[in-house]
Amino acid sequence: MNSDSHILLIDTPDAVGLIAKITTALYKRNFNILSNHQFVDEQHSHFFMRTAFEGSGDTADLLADLEANLPAAANVRLAPKGKKKLVILATKEAHCLGDLLIRAGYGDLNATIEAVIANYENLGDLVKKFNIPFHYVPHEGKERLAHAMEMAEIAKKYSPDYLVLTKYMRILPPEFIALFKHRIINIHHSFLPAFIGANPYRQAYERGVKIIGATAHFVTDNLDEGPIIHQAVAPVTHRLSATDMARAGKDLEKLVLSKAISLVMDDRVFVIANKTVVFE
Amino acid sequence: MNSDSHILLIDTPDAVGLIAKITTALYKRNFNILSNHQFVDEQHSHFFMRTAFEGSGDTADLLADLEANLPAAANVRLAPKGKKKLVILATKEAHCLGDLLIRAGYGDLNATIEAVIANYENLGDLVKKFNIPFHYVPHEGKERLAHAMEMAEIAKKYSPDYLVLTKYMRILPPEFIALFKHRIINIHHSFLPAFIGANPYRQAYERGVKIIGATAHFVTDNLDEGPIIHQAVAPVTHRLSATDMARAGKDLEKLVLSKAISLVMDDRVFVIANKTVVFE
Amino acid sequence: MNSDSHILLIDTPDAVGLIAKITTALYKRNFNILSNHQFVDEQHSHFFMRTAFEGSGDTADLLADLEANLPAAANVRLAPKGKKKLVILATKEAHCLGDLLIRAGYGDLNATIEAVIANYENLGDLVKKFNIPFHYVPHEGKERLAHAMEMAEIAKKYSPDYLVLTKYMRILPPEFIALFKHRIINIHHSFLPAFIGANPYRQAYERGVKIIGATAHFVTDNLDEGPIIHQAVAPVTHRLSATDMARAGKDLEKLVLSKAISLVMDDRVFVIANKTVVFE
Amino acid sequence: MNSDSHILLIDTPDAVGLIAKITTALYKRNFNILSNHQFVDEQHSHFFMRTAFEGSGDTADLLADLEANLPAAANVRLAPKGKKKLVILATKEAHCLGDLLIRAGYGDLNATIEAVIANYENLGDLVKKFNIPFHYVPHEGKERLAHAMEMAEIAKKYSPDYLVLTKYMRILPPEFIALFKHRIINIHHSFLPAFIGANPYRQAYERGVKIIGATAHFVTDNLDEGPIIHQAVAPVTHRLSATDMARAGKDLEKLVLSKAISLVMDDRVFVIANKTVVFE
Repeated sequence: MNSDSHILLIDTPDAVGLIAKITTALYKRNFNILSNHQFVDEQHSHFFMRTAFEGSGDTADLLADLEANLPAAANVRLAPKGKKKLVILATKEAHCLGDLLIRAGYGDLNATIEAVIANYENLGDLVKKFNIPFHYVPHEGKERLAHAMEMAEIAKKYSPDYLVLTKYMRILPPEFIALFKHRIINIHHSFLPAFIGANPYRQAYERGVKIIGATAHFVTDNLDEGPIIHQAVAPVTHRLSATDMARAGKDLEKLVLSKAISLVMDDRVFVIANKTVVFE
Repeated sequence: MNSDSHILLIDTPDAVGLIAKITTALYKRNFNILSNHQFVDEQHSHFFMRTAFEGSGDTADLLADLEANLPAAANVRLAPKGKKKLVILATKEAHCLGDLLIRAGYGDLNATIEAVIANYENLGDLVKKFNIPFHYVPHEGKERLAHAMEMAEIAKKYSPDYLVLTKYMRILPPEFIALFKHRIINIHHSFLPAFIGANPYRQAYERGVKIIGATAHFVTDNLDEGPIIHQAVAPVTHRLSATDMARAGKDLEKLVLSKAISLVMDDRVFVIANKTVVFE
Repeated sequence: MNSDSHILLIDTPDAVGLIAKITTALYKRNFNILSNHQFVDEQHSHFFMRTAFEGSGDTADLLADLEANLPAAANVRLAPKGKKKLVILATKEAHCLGDLLIRAGYGDLNATIEAVIANYENLGDLVKKFNIPFHYVPHEGKERLAHAMEMAEIAKKYSPDYLVLTKYMRILPPEFIALFKHRIINIHHSFLPAFIGANPYRQAYERGVKIIGATAHFVTDNLDEGPIIHQAVAPVTHRLSATDMARAGKDLEKLVLSKAISLVMDDRVFVIANKTVVFE
Repeated sequence: MNSDSHILLIDTPDAVGLIAKITTALYKRNFNILSNHQFVDEQHSHFFMRTAFEGSGDTADLLADLEANLPAAANVRLAPKGKKKLVILATKEAHCLGDLLIRAGYGDLNATIEAVIANYENLGDLVKKFNIPFHYVPHEGKERLAHAMEMAEIAKKYSPDYLVLTKYMRILPPEFIALFKHRIINIHHSFLPAFIGANPYRQAYERGVKIIGATAHFVTDNLDEGPIIHQAVAPVTHRLSATDMARAGKDLEKLVLSKAISLVMDDRVFVIANKTVVFE
């Protein structure tokens, strides 16, 4: 995206004429629209718009114009330029973390990984290969809240735009989540809302499903019930044990998490109530 | 399948040497194996085998040999020749029923549809086009059990091998299900075990999932919890209302139900506890 | 869609300010936009827009306004109200035809089937069940052009909006195609551009592919090379013979053709050069 | 797999009684079959079998017995124990290579990466992070054959079981391929046989396909025409440029290549003529 390219993000209570007002404001300044998505959530009567545009006009003036002419409750902003900053929370599994490290290191992720925090030590070697700070914060002998807040203190030093949980296997307390509202992305290893909670592959095996899945979602106070960003599935047969399913599911987890992160990094995801609007 | 072709179906407590004993019994009679599937369910230590073979040998003698040499609890049989007989239970929706009528009528289903029983009248015209008996059995003013047994009486006259529920929208009582154990195939309009019960598309919409599904399963006493035969899914976006999802889901329902029926008709499905072994 | 709902379809050489001009014209007449899609094909510098809107304003006045203010070469129109009319060309296979008959008859297709024309007689019984005219036009002993024009004469009597080929297995001459430019929808039984021409399942078997597909496209003078509307695929294994693949492919063909028709019926498909823009 | 577990691999001209002979030979030695797959390629009248078994019997004796009793042309062997050795050929792209490095390093690949050979230098840093030898063998100013043989000399020093091409972008000469017959695994960035040769994403964009794919295959003398091991696809829309498709395709490439390698490492893939038999 060159320096004359911008992404305009608007969400607002719905009203007649919104697109006309917004695109006219752009046109008056000779901005050229490159791509444009809108959606009205009928249930909440709320309007969403993501517009990529280019031109040498005055964007501050544009924003002022829009704020003056759109509903008072409208949320109008330009997506910040440059790569967003991520801090990753991990436990022991390497596959999602490794995938993100390769992507971030070789240009496939519109983000930088600022640091990795883990409650086990084994992933340190992997992270350090990529010259990224690794913080080992064991949870043993600590209250859940104290442990989480210790991680939060470390994370905040890196001013992350988002936290990403790459199979971080402990429940985060509400106090932690409140610090990063709609800014924590988790990968759950099932096709939510099926198999919430612990050991979803074991649950899937017991139920005898013919398809397994993975779900990336924003973390809220209700375990595995936050707004879903992306999901994918793969077929399985009676031949797979719970362990086989877990192995087969790793690729799904990598794929779904990285796709969700990519959508969020590109400012394509809005949250409304407990759902997402995803402009692809 | 010509008259010298057979399908041997065996399930038995596991033991060493089962395949050797079975294939030797076939070889001794100069039967040629066309395709062969085996599986051992480790959890229940149970062995399953489906063998298609051909030859002019004596199959009664084969079965006697197998019964004498396999574990006493072994279940050994040849799949019956010819098309299986189906009786369909329907409510108001035409898509699954219509799909099966076309398939049965034009050679895409290894079964005959003997009759359709429905608790509404509107599908009668469709069924009669295909010269198939249509029984309108309204449920209004009847006890659930009495209504179900009225349908059972009609169904039994056709000596069906299986009942198929093409979006039959009422719960069947245990007394009915007991008459057709593991012989009732239902299509549920969600990716089970997500969204059990009523109005799964509404539930899917409320949860904001990015994928919808359909599940074909054998009916048991626990609603939507019987052994799963086949499942499939399709992506959805925030743009779809619950009604849109229901519309989009119809194709999934048709596809999943007809595939499940096809697998069962071809004797490719075994039930073990609450799961299926499907030999494709 | 109630009588105050409309779909505006615009394609035009690209220019700055198109969306502003169009949505302002709608807003001035107090029309409310229900959904909106735009796309600019950069290669051809061409702009496409589909806008669903509602309101009691004067649509003739709207169109006049747009034509006056958009580029002279702009193509501006409202989608006609009501169901579109289809004439189907078939050969011998029943599955796609049967699927469309059920859909059209039971509310799953935004179109009416006016007539079916076939070069074999066997599908007549099926078509007549649905009280639709069936024209048997054998090709034997006729020149290709003469045969095609005989079908064209019959088709034209029904004033079809589109022709649909449900596995019509003969090549149509350019003179026929010219009569229905970008108005003939074909289903090809492969994942185009793989396996153009005859017997694609045999070709797929010979090549040993692990996935088969189906492709719906507009018919042009180049066999199987017209603009692609929709495609889908399914996995296969070494176990499937060419005949097995053909059987497995039938469901894909039904699904892809009906989806493509549905997209075209809803005015969601634009053609640019040899490609389509599909607004879902 | 414990030391008493083995995988028996047999391919042979077909005959009656093969399974009986093989499983009886196992049973006589009290070997227990864990899983078993067979297939007869009717076209070539050739039989394939992969049997996982366990027991403390004498496997040399088993093999001698089988060789004595199966057709003279039968190919009978036990899969070698332990991880197979890979040498990778790369050019400039990091995604497939990086994915394999993470998998091999963290237990998700039943193989070791012995070395990476590349005709560009940029991937050296990545490879060295994982303490794996990196050989930079520029092709500039060299004949194709000479360059390939320079790589072959290096590869042979590592006694690789298989070579893997992680987007190695040059054509390998027949002399090179002959050294590693059916032991070179390539990932092609299209749904073969569509878009053979250079720049398949550009070809896919030009054709306007609605689905893109990736194909893993064994390399033969005919470019992109070797036996296909695995394929996968993903939907695309008119919104994607050729560059967007290439980006979207990277995940497919990783997934398909790693799945194909995994199948080959587990001795699940047989080659017959120009096709594969894959026992999953």
